[in-house]
Amino acid sequence: MIHNSTIDYQLNHRSIRAFKPQNLSDDQLTTLYEAARHASTSMFMQQFSILHVTDPAKRAAIRRLGRQPYIGQNGDLLIFLVDLYRNQKIRQAAGKDDGRLHTTDIFQQAVEDTVLAVQNTLLAAESMDLGGVILGSIKNNPIELIKVLDLPKMTFPLLGLQVGIPDQAPQLKPRLPLDTLVMENNYHRAFKASDLKDYDQVVSQYYDLRDANRRIDSFTKQIAGAKLDNHETTRDKLAAALQQQGLALDWK
Amino acid sequence: MIHNSTIDYQLNHRSIRAFKPQNLSDDQLTTLYEAARHASTSMFMQQFSILHVTDPAKRAAIRRLGRQPYIGQNGDLLIFLVDLYRNQKIRQAAGKDDGRLHTTDIFQQAVEDTVLAVQNTLLAAESMDLGGVILGSIKNNPIELIKVLDLPKMTFPLLGLQVGIPDQAPQLKPRLPLDTLVMENNYHRAFKASDLKDYDQVVSQYYDLRDANRRIDSFTKQIAGAKLDNHETTRDKLAAALQQQGLALDWK
Repeated sequence: MIHNSTIDYQLNHRSIRAFKPQNLSDDQLTTLYEAARHASTSMFMQQFSILHVTDPAKRAAIRRLGRQPYIGQNGDLLIFLVDLYRNQKIRQAAGKDDGRLHTTDIFQQAVEDTVLAVQNTLLAAESMDLGGVILGSIKNNPIELIKVLDLPKMTFPLLGLQVGIPDQAPQLKPRLPLDTLVMENNYHRAFKASDLKDYDQVVSQYYDLRDANRRIDSFTKQIAGAKLDNHETTRDKLAAALQQQGLALDWK
Repeated sequence: MIHNSTIDYQLNHRSIRAFKPQNLSDDQLTTLYEAARHASTSMFMQQFSILHVTDPAKRAAIRRLGRQPYIGQNGDLLIFLVDLYRNQKIRQAAGKDDGRLHTTDIFQQAVEDTVLAVQNTLLAAESMDLGGVILGSIKNNPIELIKVLDLPKMTFPLLGLQVGIPDQAPQLKPRLPLDTLVMENNYHRAFKASDLKDYDQVVSQYYDLRDANRRIDSFTKQIAGAKLDNHETTRDKLAAALQQQGLALDWK
């Protein structure tokens, strides 16, 4: 195992959900944007944008939809958009049709651009001893969020990032062992839930130390439990929201 | 603009496509895997895996499908898989049905997990003065690639990463200006292709310096040109490949 400052920041990642009541400086924000801007981009199409949300009414609406109290509270809120609007306008100005912009393939490339930029932004924040949490919960009700943000077609709010000065120091959450995560040449079809017996104990101990008063679930119990059980949720409006936005229209 | 070693590695990112004829050490590989393993994961579901491909026949087949000469040549080849197989097996062992594993929502969360891990891996490599290129081209023919890799249902090969000791020192590729990429509260619907006039010149100059003998295309010319023009491509088998794998079955 090799160590340097970048790798150590990566290994020390924990999601921060409590921030001091202070916003980032312009200098800090610009640095985060530069980190995002320099991430890899598929076929040099640069199909993402960042919406910095400071408007209190919008922040409250995003918090209500995301159902997490720290969204849009202390710190800064960035919404990362899949953005094919810009390239559509460029093609229109050149007198071209939309070409492949409505395909699942190009949408997926834009998703990848966007997520690569999110990770660069979060790690840049962590390297400045700021903290952050990636907000998948902004997709809890994608059609409503698109209205709140008044987004045009050909854009989609993929992930949020709440970032600021940490006001908590959580334990490192233990991840799947490397021999489960990494395979050589052949996919390990023989995987069994019982292979994770030791890991389950490590996870249970983590929760026990974090909060002895709460119910403690091992990893396999969580996966077998409520989070993946069938239930009604507006998160299942994802495909409808994408199609409403003109994205991935060729899916069949 | 704030600088530290992590941010400077991010700002200096360029894709490396020529590597010295040397493989990574076990120590280097383990370090990359640890960087991937510690990336954020949605709802703690940890839905990705890494396939390290060393088998020459498989490398050649992936290169043929990806149609890029550096794939599976010098250096190491990692294939990042969206992996819901593991969580399916865990639920089966607990006597549970597959629950939400076949939804677009859970698939999308797994995609995000996977891409976050890819970016951490690439930056970890760069921080060790290795280089790499993310391979979106492994999705050129997804159904064939799934056969080559003999992947089970509930997995999908999302991105590759060719990584090694750089044998080239390309120029930094200029990215969209920050005032195009970042917006405050409101999406900038008034964007016009002509806003990128200065940026187009910067991009043209970059290509001119890189290879004066090749045709030079500005950014807007590229977007208005062949890469987004309608054409027949096996990349449009993406949705069919996902459904074949049992993923995102509720899309409609």
